[in-house]
Amino acid sequence: MPAFSPSDPNFESRLRSSAGMQGLLSTLGAELGLVRAGEVHLTAPYDARFSQQDGFLHAGIAAALMDSACGYAAYSLMPAASRVLSVEFKVNLLSPARGQRFRAEGRVVKSGRTLTVCEGKLFSIENDAETLCTIMQATMICIKE
Amino acid sequence: MPAFSPSDPNFESRLRSSAGMQGLLSTLGAELGLVRAGEVHLTAPYDARFSQQDGFLHAGIAAALMDSACGYAAYSLMPAASRVLSVEFKVNLLSPARGQRFRAEGRVVKSGRTLTVCEGKLFSIENDAETLCTIMQATMICIKE
Amino acid sequence: MPAFSPSDPNFESRLRSSAGMQGLLSTLGAELGLVRAGEVHLTAPYDARFSQQDGFLHAGIAAALMDSACGYAAYSLMPAASRVLSVEFKVNLLSPARGQRFRAEGRVVKSGRTLTVCEGKLFSIENDAETLCTIMQATMICIKE
Amino acid sequence: MPAFSPSDPNFESRLRSSAGMQGLLSTLGAELGLVRAGEVHLTAPYDARFSQQDGFLHAGIAAALMDSACGYAAYSLMPAASRVLSVEFKVNLLSPARGQRFRAEGRVVKSGRTLTVCEGKLFSIENDAETLCTIMQATMICIKE
Repeated sequence: MPAFSPSDPNFESRLRSSAGMQGLLSTLGAELGLVRAGEVHLTAPYDARFSQQDGFLHAGIAAALMDSACGYAAYSLMPAASRVLSVEFKVNLLSPARGQRFRAEGRVVKSGRTLTVCEGKLFSIENDAETLCTIMQATMICIKE
Repeated sequence: MPAFSPSDPNFESRLRSSAGMQGLLSTLGAELGLVRAGEVHLTAPYDARFSQQDGFLHAGIAAALMDSACGYAAYSLMPAASRVLSVEFKVNLLSPARGQRFRAEGRVVKSGRTLTVCEGKLFSIENDAETLCTIMQATMICIKE
Repeated sequence: MPAFSPSDPNFESRLRSSAGMQGLLSTLGAELGLVRAGEVHLTAPYDARFSQQDGFLHAGIAAALMDSACGYAAYSLMPAASRVLSVEFKVNLLSPARGQRFRAEGRVVKSGRTLTVCEGKLFSIENDAETLCTIMQATMICIKE
Repeated sequence: MPAFSPSDPNFESRLRSSAGMQGLLSTLGAELGLVRAGEVHLTAPYDARFSQQDGFLHAGIAAALMDSACGYAAYSLMPAASRVLSVEFKVNLLSPARGQRFRAEGRVVKSGRTLTVCEGKLFSIENDAETLCTIMQATMICIKE
């Protein structure tokens, strides 16, 4: 992964403030983990309220966690007076999302003035064993304010 | 869209039973609408608990609704003793998912013995006006039991 | 599909001129079919030089035809002094691309100032029977000149 | 990336034989580079016959090279009496594919009995400088013979 120089040195507080405004992240009990220029992690506990029919984490919630991690990874490199929106994402489900906790990782692959391409991963954590469950390839857009 | 002949004439009760076991659909207040061979609709109210940072429905929840509609559209054509799992999906976000209610539509494009390809749409409903917000292209897999 | 009002009334000549500059379309023997605001078709003959290992049309060539049809569908709605580039596309392969000829169809789903979302289809034509082989969901970007 | 144990010790000759039957790879002048269990590289020269309207390598050809590299990475882990077909792929275009040569890399992310998920990359090579141009997330299917 390339090294990135954020244009806004205060990106972390801007990013945490935006994450605090996401109703979904709060509902999921998700918390920001690693936050650095071009890479953001989110963790969330398993909760049967967000399961699919077999009791695994619903693919849409896996997508939500990866999309948020990717969106904030992209946002870390955007200018101070900007917003970030998802343009599109693609998810492959590798293993059932079964575990006590989940960690989503978002990384910027290519940062552009308008569009940023990111890769996301979701790991399940079950008794200290981590399993890669889902992967994402996503595009984010910078909206100047 | 092609016409489909379901191999299991009782697909609707099997499908409703599976949907009833999804923790997420219940949490979202989602309800099955149209259910026919190869096509399933789901509706859900807006709820700020599932929003992104601007107050719109979170892209992951849009994905969850379309993924469930597509999964059940695929499942309607699968044999009685089977389960359905998502293999992958791709979402494009066209307009902010802003509205009082949302309707997800899932349709089978190609039904195979193992894999089924579906298209999903999510419409927002705001004061009787419907707007296409997001589209999905997805693959589902049939697990024989 | 929505009806579109092109901002450039001469979009067709601009589009045909761009297509004429694509080395690949000429190499494939591809020809523009229907050209209207928001929708463009391309046809190409089967040629074993572009096959995969089983003799079918290579998935990458299917992607190329759909990507070009989608790109020109998007380009038909862009301003006169602009270029079009692909941002991303997703392809599902439904049936082996086996036939004497192929027709790619590209349609605009959502036209924006910067980004345009399109859907593509590729049909194989074998003794007058048409089969839907592949589908695409794609994003195009308008580069102002 | 995980380490893989191929079930067929002679996977390389099987893989080279299949690649030799691809009309497209021959037409593109593509050659296999690194071939190991779960990872396959392909290189191809730039050729204006395969360009888009600005003279860059056409996105469909970029997709073809990554799809072939991914398909053979997946095929390296499949049993001796099997074929590989692409189920779906998603491509993000990061930089114009401009260069004298291109190298596609395909890697298996998750190998299953039926489905294999791969990641692909395409690098352009211009005067010894390598640039990541496009990335792919793909699903391949094993057809038993």
